[in-house]
Amino acid sequence: MKDVLVELITIGDEILIGQIVDTNSAWMATVLNQEGFRIKQITSVSDDTGHILEAVDLAFNRADVVLVTGGLGPTKDDITKQTLCTYFNTELVYDTSVLENIQALFKDRPVVLNELTLNQAYIPKSATIIQNKRGTAPVTWFDKDGKVLVSMPGVPSEMQWVMSHEVLPRLKAHFKTPALMHRTVLVHGYPESGLAMTLTDWENNLPSWIKLAYLPSPGLVKLRLTGSLDEQEALAASLEHELVSLRAILGKAILAEADIPVEAVVGQALKKRGLTLSTAESCTGGRIAHLLTSIPGSSAYFTGSVVAYDNRIKVEALGVDPASLETEGAVSQTVVEQMAAGIRQRFGTDLSLAVSGIAGPDGGSPEKPVGTVWICACSSTEILSRRYQFGQHRGRTVDMAALSAMALLLEVINHTNQS
Amino acid sequence: MKDVLVELITIGDEILIGQIVDTNSAWMATVLNQEGFRIKQITSVSDDTGHILEAVDLAFNRADVVLVTGGLGPTKDDITKQTLCTYFNTELVYDTSVLENIQALFKDRPVVLNELTLNQAYIPKSATIIQNKRGTAPVTWFDKDGKVLVSMPGVPSEMQWVMSHEVLPRLKAHFKTPALMHRTVLVHGYPESGLAMTLTDWENNLPSWIKLAYLPSPGLVKLRLTGSLDEQEALAASLEHELVSLRAILGKAILAEADIPVEAVVGQALKKRGLTLSTAESCTGGRIAHLLTSIPGSSAYFTGSVVAYDNRIKVEALGVDPASLETEGAVSQTVVEQMAAGIRQRFGTDLSLAVSGIAGPDGGSPEKPVGTVWICACSSTEILSRRYQFGQHRGRTVDMAALSAMALLLEVINHTNQS
Repeated sequence: MKDVLVELITIGDEILIGQIVDTNSAWMATVLNQEGFRIKQITSVSDDTGHILEAVDLAFNRADVVLVTGGLGPTKDDITKQTLCTYFNTELVYDTSVLENIQALFKDRPVVLNELTLNQAYIPKSATIIQNKRGTAPVTWFDKDGKVLVSMPGVPSEMQWVMSHEVLPRLKAHFKTPALMHRTVLVHGYPESGLAMTLTDWENNLPSWIKLAYLPSPGLVKLRLTGSLDEQEALAASLEHELVSLRAILGKAILAEADIPVEAVVGQALKKRGLTLSTAESCTGGRIAHLLTSIPGSSAYFTGSVVAYDNRIKVEALGVDPASLETEGAVSQTVVEQMAAGIRQRFGTDLSLAVSGIAGPDGGSPEKPVGTVWICACSSTEILSRRYQFGQHRGRTVDMAALSAMALLLEVINHTNQS
Repeated sequence: MKDVLVELITIGDEILIGQIVDTNSAWMATVLNQEGFRIKQITSVSDDTGHILEAVDLAFNRADVVLVTGGLGPTKDDITKQTLCTYFNTELVYDTSVLENIQALFKDRPVVLNELTLNQAYIPKSATIIQNKRGTAPVTWFDKDGKVLVSMPGVPSEMQWVMSHEVLPRLKAHFKTPALMHRTVLVHGYPESGLAMTLTDWENNLPSWIKLAYLPSPGLVKLRLTGSLDEQEALAASLEHELVSLRAILGKAILAEADIPVEAVVGQALKKRGLTLSTAESCTGGRIAHLLTSIPGSSAYFTGSVVAYDNRIKVEALGVDPASLETEGAVSQTVVEQMAAGIRQRFGTDLSLAVSGIAGPDGGSPEKPVGTVWICACSSTEILSRRYQFGQHRGRTVDMAALSAMALLLEVINHTNQS
């Protein structure tokens, strides 16, 4: 089956001066991909007639569908509507249905309808109108030589509403798309290149209908398999077959088979087993607690943390032995294990996690250079501690340490399960 | 003076399927704009040779500078390097300086250099090499007919490093851009539209050579004044004149007049006065401690934190009265003040900061809906507590609470100074 190609064009000076991050495109790309459309290109252009015309024309030549967002506001710097009239050789006409939609929108709101807002009811004559139940700018749908252009508002909440409820259902009815299936695997403990080396044979033997992508972030590589076949059951079986091989190669380096953050993997593992967790953080400074509590419902398993940045706090709030700090230093196996045992006992949790390291730029020594981090995860039956070396970059070391700590914790959680 | 036009091209299937949001482009657009370059278009394309060639060619026809990110990883889905060889009619050659840079990078890390990583040392013959001190993929700079194309890694931390330290200084040396002068003011306590209303008259009376941009983030609006005049001293005086008016209008809503994060403003204020700080966090879950410790040298003033997610920890680790929790609830003025007093006393710091709130999605009630947050900052002579309402979105509430807590702390720090 031929791919249905889609291009996204976002219009607005605020994107080109870096004032806002274009999150609309990623959202649209995700929902379009799930429905089997393929995104060919994403283009951001300024509120400039000539440039919009050029971008639309190029996109129409490459793709079957062009989705345009932005430039539909009532102020004079918004020129998308007029520009599309020029491109499709039509004119603006007054449409009472748009006015009725706007009046219904403002019914319960203390806003006076002004001339600028009412101007929204002028729409391109040759377009099909789709009412926007979340805002004043209507959606316009243009057909041309079997291809489609849809112009939508740029406000994310309005765009998402019209896309989900109106535009996507109509696109699915209009075009026949291949069914895509995605599988995501989170791999820890390999740099991207090392992982690629390890997977060379497996990757070279993937069937033609499965594509592989590596998505690296500090401490983690996300592997994404995308399959495309008309026969859905065969595709699911084929993807599962490849995952079986992948599991055999990577073993426990696979943290999860889902496109979710590692803190959600930890949360699910704890919740499933009814276990509670506390953390004691030094160099990560609360980063792990912040990640864990970013997951809704985390209070069911996460009790709290002591961020012991000062050595005195390690002694007073975690019960670390001052003599150990003196002889072995704060970044040592002895101290990180005392931190983990201390928080577990004081916060009364099943499991605990402790991190002590040198994030830099100062504080390194020949034996313990900047980037040295000790991590300990413990349960009632296991103390697992490990030394890591993350390099010179402070922010990256904190991210890598937090990720590695959660991976180490998952090992202990899995052992807890087996016992 | 003629504008120097720049186009950004981001390469990678992960952007086109919506798996990652392209934050690189907004970051690059911001720093380029600050230096007087104008962004003409941002384009995202897939890892496809033909499409990359087309995008590069079109961009080169429109702009003076083309900045390409992504597709430089060592795996076989990364094809940017080979594609640029085709476009510039050159070939890959082995470059020992790249290998030396990679070996220096891995010096302190227990990673074996593998064949794929070493492949990074093959670079396009006609390009100028710029070493990447943060990763294995070098930056390549191509000159063509007075125009420039630079290919950079897509990993944000690497791109930001090479852009700041290498690419931007070279672009500034290579092209003549208008001399710009920037002033940044951090404003807290206004939504963007409310701030714009407050500043309407002032903004309308700005001289033609000063442009104003609003850069909103949760809890903070960054105002950026950009001035452009040939006469530098007159420009500086004119900017200062407008800042005097702005200070009179906004008063203590101005947290700082510098383009630095608020956690750095807090750090500077504490350091200058020789004060120490501890925090007690509930709904922010360690976010404040993480932000404070992201600043190098923060151990000089930040002692640590208790993340008391569970009420039992509020009692045991912070000394909150169980009766207060019972009668007033964890999210109350009484409890947040006890948290602040408890951490200040137990961690022995000059100042403390406590946050307790309902991040959601669950836990709200008619009296205390989701988004209700109490914050308290205290010193030996002052207890300042305030109730906030941040709305339904969990992540946004945590960000807003952390920002507002630091703003409240700055009030107490400033009073400490006066006493």
